[in-house]
Amino acid sequence: MYKIKIATVGKAKENWLQDALEEYAARLKPFAAIEWILAKNSEKLKQFLKEETSYICLDPKGKLYSSEQFSLFLIGQLQAQGSRLTFVIGDAEGLPPEIRQSAAALLSISPMTFTHQMTRLILLEQLYRAIEIDRGTAYHK
Amino acid sequence: MYKIKIATVGKAKENWLQDALEEYAARLKPFAAIEWILAKNSEKLKQFLKEETSYICLDPKGKLYSSEQFSLFLIGQLQAQGSRLTFVIGDAEGLPPEIRQSAAALLSISPMTFTHQMTRLILLEQLYRAIEIDRGTAYHK
Repeated sequence: MYKIKIATVGKAKENWLQDALEEYAARLKPFAAIEWILAKNSEKLKQFLKEETSYICLDPKGKLYSSEQFSLFLIGQLQAQGSRLTFVIGDAEGLPPEIRQSAAALLSISPMTFTHQMTRLILLEQLYRAIEIDRGTAYHK
Repeated sequence: MYKIKIATVGKAKENWLQDALEEYAARLKPFAAIEWILAKNSEKLKQFLKEETSYICLDPKGKLYSSEQFSLFLIGQLQAQGSRLTFVIGDAEGLPPEIRQSAAALLSISPMTFTHQMTRLILLEQLYRAIEIDRGTAYHK
């Protein structure tokens, strides 16, 4: 069982987002426990990340992967780190430089800018897709 | 007022997706009327597209744009085509070659594979973002 933390600033305000996140968390449940860290602001996010040995930032300047490449990357990272991994999503202002500089990797989901709320949903779906790719199921074809 | 058609296969099944699509359609309302063409299958989609003078396909092999570049592209296309534009989103099997080959442009929103349902939401948010970028508002900064 993988343990994946997703740290970000602010709550999931919209009902539709909350429903969508719950749907993918439920799909992930047999394989990965998702823990959300919803920091009040960037300062609190920094404090939380000081305790983490390693984390991956979602950043517009990060590396672009296909879903297949992301699956290889994710499973590799999980295996290297005792099945635990932490992702960080910035707020509208982006991530503070101190956080970006200490990241183990910077990952971009698109050259386009998405709302950070929509980014949560996309990350969760890609985590599910990455695990299904690794399992060789029909979800990703 | 822009008139934008989005043609795709299948309905928006999930309630959260329906709610999210309605939210962005409402935000777009002062600037663009969105018309959804929900074809039953690829055959019906092909029939609909025969009547369209020009359309843009969302395709994994398409061109990647930043949101700023997409805004320039979108406004340019709208101006060239009398404020009307049609987008096409394929189903899980992707778009039939005949549809892709007749497209005015192939556009990719990410090297990652997203569900085509999530792609609808991302496209709608990017249309709204593109118009806000063109209007010079604070939505995109």
